[in-house]
This record gives sequence, structure tokens and C-alpha cells, in this order.
Amino acid sequence: MPSNTPRIRAVIFDAFGTLFDVYSVGALAEQLFPGKGEALAALWRQKQIEYAFIRTLSGRYKPFLAVTEDGLVFAARKLGLDLDDGARRQLMNQYACLSPFPENLAVLRKLRERGLPLAILSNGTPEMLDVAVRSAGMHGLFDHVLSVERVGAYKTHPDAYGLGPAALGCTPQEIVFVSSNGWDAIGATWFGYTSFWVNRGNQPPEQLDVTPSATGTTLDELLDFIDRRLAAGSASQKVA
Amino acid sequence: MPSNTPRIRAVIFDAFGTLFDVYSVGALAEQLFPGKGEALAALWRQKQIEYAFIRTLSGRYKPFLAVTEDGLVFAARKLGLDLDDGARRQLMNQYACLSPFPENLAVLRKLRERGLPLAILSNGTPEMLDVAVRSAGMHGLFDHVLSVERVGAYKTHPDAYGLGPAALGCTPQEIVFVSSNGWDAIGATWFGYTSFWVNRGNQPPEQLDVTPSATGTTLDELLDFIDRRLAAGSASQKVA
Repeated sequence: MPSNTPRIRAVIFDAFGTLFDVYSVGALAEQLFPGKGEALAALWRQKQIEYAFIRTLSGRYKPFLAVTEDGLVFAARKLGLDLDDGARRQLMNQYACLSPFPENLAVLRKLRERGLPLAILSNGTPEMLDVAVRSAGMHGLFDHVLSVERVGAYKTHPDAYGLGPAALGCTPQEIVFVSSNGWDAIGATWFGYTSFWVNRGNQPPEQLDVTPSATGTTLDELLDFIDRRLAAGSASQKVA
Repeated sequence: MPSNTPRIRAVIFDAFGTLFDVYSVGALAEQLFPGKGEALAALWRQKQIEYAFIRTLSGRYKPFLAVTEDGLVFAARKLGLDLDDGARRQLMNQYACLSPFPENLAVLRKLRERGLPLAILSNGTPEMLDVAVRSAGMHGLFDHVLSVERVGAYKTHPDAYGLGPAALGCTPQEIVFVSSNGWDAIGATWFGYTSFWVNRGNQPPEQLDVTPSATGTTLDELLDFIDRRLAAGSASQKVA
């Protein structure tokens, strides 16, 4: 590690897909629309993100829960599915009962044992995040739960990423920003974070000219990455 | 028409998919990757637009030809296709030999006969647009060919849409902005243009809280819309 690599002082996590497994949403979609659930969940997610991008580009912020519902309505129409009020409510409610990925709780606890402050920085509304943190059994593990709602701009806008350093009181480089979304890991890298892409789905890298600081397939590999950085940091401190 | 509806003074067109038929790109993709061409063309387009959004959000502009190639590389990897240099070059070159949609040339000429200045406002680079205009036989039909390259921001950023009124010397409301992309028609509507969505593919409306001023399936319907607006404008002038 070059001697000018900054010490890691905190870790920020994206929420949906990174900490919280959204698989159950797809499973319910498949129950409701047999044979079309996967396509619905994929297009829903795509439109949710696309609408967040477009609204931010055009300065037309709207809370993420509503943007999420807009994406669902479009996706169902595009696929020719009859989304009645009941199905719509069931699918939206699924966002309130997500599970954590299996390794996450143990990793979060170990990171806290290292003395690292932990935070969430998400497109989700404060209410969505509060419910998700509780339903995943993660209450009390985070020093900050940051919603982009405070700045009215979705990631990858710099105002959104700027919430992290402001809350944690350190530079972006001293913070590991963790996301399972390739574009989010790249946006964080552009902003100046040390970045970790949890590539759970074995996706190809986004072609955006930069790569995250590190990539792994689970949060266990994040723990290894951080432990190596902490060890290298204290070794170079001893040398100095 | 309410008496405060402004007179239409000019028409601006999006380029790819609106004036120029990108079907041939999909057809070549299918030749190169039988059974996968449609999926490749769709994902390529999706990533091209997504990268343009993300780069603009993060202030990382890169010319659209390069963004287009980045989208192609990602899409091929995601679909597990072996995109060698030859296939890559062939697909990219296809952007230089697009055809106009069948009705377009006649409609553009009729709009010029109405005395309306015409312009293109596109994410494409000036070079891409120059080649496309020539290869579609549209040389000499446009008063302005505007590339967002001048402002380094892709649609739906207001700086991109702002190029139109600046070049044409009228208000956004006095200009009909025409796009086959639902999100582009909405972005133009937000900016203040009178907007026309050419919904060629019978897509569901984007769920973004506003609707374009008008929608049709071909440019023939655009001509009808404009003729009605011009007639109503001169009628109300006579009354006044």
C-alpha cells in the first residue's frame, strides 16, 4: 500500500440489494404473475432507477417510495400485466419486509468491533430505511442512516454522496463506500470514496472508465479488504 | 385552444429513433448473433442512455459515440456474446448508415413550406449527426443541428434543452419538441417546450407525473397537430 493511502475511518453502505435482499420482491412477483415475475422485478428495478436519474437531472425530485411505485406501474403496463390495487399494494408492502443477506449481520458486528462507525446512504426515504433496518434486525448497528431526501437529489449526484463525509466528519477517501450496484460503486469512486463493489450477481463491470477500489462477491470479502487496509495502515504508522 | 396558447414558431427533433430509424442496427446485431440480436440491441440502447444519464449526474461528460460504444461492450458481455473487434466496428459503423422513417422526409418538407424553422437537438456528437443527416437524405432541411456536446450535458439536463430556444430565438413554449423517447418528451415538457411524443412502438406512458402536449404514432400526426395549432393561432389573431 502506498504510504499516502489514507487510513479507513468509516464504512457507508447502500441499502437495497446491498444490505437488504430484495429477492422476496421478485418471489412475490412470480407468485402473482407466474412466468412473468422475474421480468417484472427486473423492469421494475430498471425503471425505478431510471426515474430517479431523470428526476434528478431535471431537478424534479419526488420521494423514492413514490418513484418506486411509478416504476412498478410502468413495468406492469409494459409487460401487459393486470396490476390491480391489491397486487400493487402487496408488491409495494414487500419493501417493508426484506431480509438481510446471510453474512451481513455478522460482518456489520465485526466492523463495529474494529471501532469503525457505520452508516447507510440510500436513495430510500427515511421511513423506508427505518422499516428496512428494523425488519432486517439491524437496529442499533448504524451511527447514521442517511437518506438522499435531505438534499433532494438521487445518486449519482454529488450532493447525494456528499451526505456521507458531512455526517461522518472525514474525507471521502477515508470512507469505504459499499454498494451492490455497479453504477453506484462507480459514482462513489468518482466522488472520491474508497469504494467496494459487492458484485453478488456476477455482473460484468460497468463501462464508465473507472473501477471501484475493490470488488468482491459478499460482505465477507469486504471485511477482508478492510482488515488488510487497517493492518497496512497500522504497519505504516509503526514504521513512521 | 385557450387564447394564451403561444403561436408555434419552430420545431425541434430528437435524432436517433425519431428522425433516423435505428432498426438496421438491430438487424445487423441479429445477423451477427442469431437469436440474440434483439436482446443485444435493446440492452445496448438501455445502457447507452443510462451511461449518458449517470455521466451527466456526476459531471463526467464523454462524447456520445464513445458512450455508445461503452454501452455496446457492456451489453455484449452481459449477454455472454463474443464481441470481437470486427463485430464491434460493424455495429458501431451501422450508426453511419441509418435510414429515415418512411414519412419523415415529406413531413419535414411540408413543415418548411409552413415557414417553420426546423432543428435537431440530440445527444449525438456533431460528427454523428452530420453523417446521419446526410445518409438519411435530410441535408439542407434543418436550420440548426444542435449537439449537447456544446454544453457537455445530456438530456434531460436543462442545459441540453436550453440549446433550442437560444439557437431559435423564441421561447420553449413557441417550439414543438418532437421525440420518440417518452422520457425525452417528458424532459422537454418539464423544460417548458410544447412537446410531441412520437410513440412509434406503442409504449406505455412514462410515469413521471406529466404528459407531453400531444402524442401520435408517426410524424404525419405531428403535421396534423401543428396545422391545427397554426390554424387556431391565425383564427385567434383574426378575432383579436
